[in-house]
Amino acid sequence: MKIGIVGGTGDIGEGMAMRLSPQFDVIVGSREKEKAEATCEFGIEALKKRGQKCSLTGVSNQAAVDSADIVILAIPFKHLLGTLETLHGFEGKIVISPVNPMEKRDFFTFVPPQEGSAALLLKKLLPPTAKICTAFNSIAANRWKLLDEELDYSVPVCSDDAEAKQQVIGIVNRISKLHAFDAGPLAASYLVESLTPLLLNIARYNKMKDVGIQFH
Amino acid sequence: MKIGIVGGTGDIGEGMAMRLSPQFDVIVGSREKEKAEATCEFGIEALKKRGQKCSLTGVSNQAAVDSADIVILAIPFKHLLGTLETLHGFEGKIVISPVNPMEKRDFFTFVPPQEGSAALLLKKLLPPTAKICTAFNSIAANRWKLLDEELDYSVPVCSDDAEAKQQVIGIVNRISKLHAFDAGPLAASYLVESLTPLLLNIARYNKMKDVGIQFH
Repeated sequence: MKIGIVGGTGDIGEGMAMRLSPQFDVIVGSREKEKAEATCEFGIEALKKRGQKCSLTGVSNQAAVDSADIVILAIPFKHLLGTLETLHGFEGKIVISPVNPMEKRDFFTFVPPQEGSAALLLKKLLPPTAKICTAFNSIAANRWKLLDEELDYSVPVCSDDAEAKQQVIGIVNRISKLHAFDAGPLAASYLVESLTPLLLNIARYNKMKDVGIQFH
Repeated sequence: MKIGIVGGTGDIGEGMAMRLSPQFDVIVGSREKEKAEATCEFGIEALKKRGQKCSLTGVSNQAAVDSADIVILAIPFKHLLGTLETLHGFEGKIVISPVNPMEKRDFFTFVPPQEGSAALLLKKLLPPTAKICTAFNSIAANRWKLLDEELDYSVPVCSDDAEAKQQVIGIVNRISKLHAFDAGPLAASYLVESLTPLLLNIARYNKMKDVGIQFH
């Protein structure tokens, strides 16, 4: 299974690529292909040191969409619209959104678009055959990158496509100690996206770093 | 320290009273004093069986407010306004809101009042000297009641009053294995209140019971 990461050289995307690549063929996309190639070189080296085989290929964002079965949009909310305007070819693909519309004001605040969530905005922007799934929203960039530490978090997953949701749940459960939970239809994504500003507030006010979540 | 529970015979209030009473003087309030007395009798018996001393007194909701230093509003959101209209005397008291404005539609949905959260609605309804704190929002009624099981959850606490917040954090940390976290000012409460519909969705779609949360 080929997983393409749009924004794969960004803060979240880079760690995500390294965590996914021992299990899946990962296509790292970037606005600049050279940057994606450099990220992959770095990732392959880092994983090799740890005795892990991997499959990492650096390409443009568009090529990442084109060659993948599953596309992860690892981009900040403020760049979502602009990035999608430059891309096409999402028809029939599973598109994973870890995007959280939020802002740092007096405290971290959930600032959804008028559709109600990044996921529902995506539903409007992408072709109707794209199978949008919300996942990976609340895992800090640093945690993705600390390859020697397990990711011991719960990951809520939303989608209106039952089959796509099960596939994404399967992917989540193969990464480190992540544990996926079905969090309902795509319209329930705002409850998942608004977890992230809460966790950032918890980190800030309790002098913690990279706070994550477990359901139990 | 005297803790009064408005709605202390309700689903959440009853278990809360039993969990708090070995540590604090708990004043259980109810619309009907007799019901509060019966709940206390039951609670005292249940704790006695477990070799735990306790202090539980059943009174009216108004008497619970009057005699307590700290008041917990253990009432569903839909009864919040109606209940507060019948009560007075919150001046200078710490008022804890575990209230979550939500509805069961296709899935559990966060339905805040126009103020943005139950906590900010309370700020409007209560006298300005009341020190409102958001806490205990995401612990299921059943978990409160299962006295033989530890409550091993994280509890986000919001308030604009730093001293009151620290006092509430102290109270939370004395109950079972609860772990309080400062979640910011009162205006950030909507992020805490909207956790509960998320957890109810997680429970529903994964066939789980009484899902709680841990930050780490």
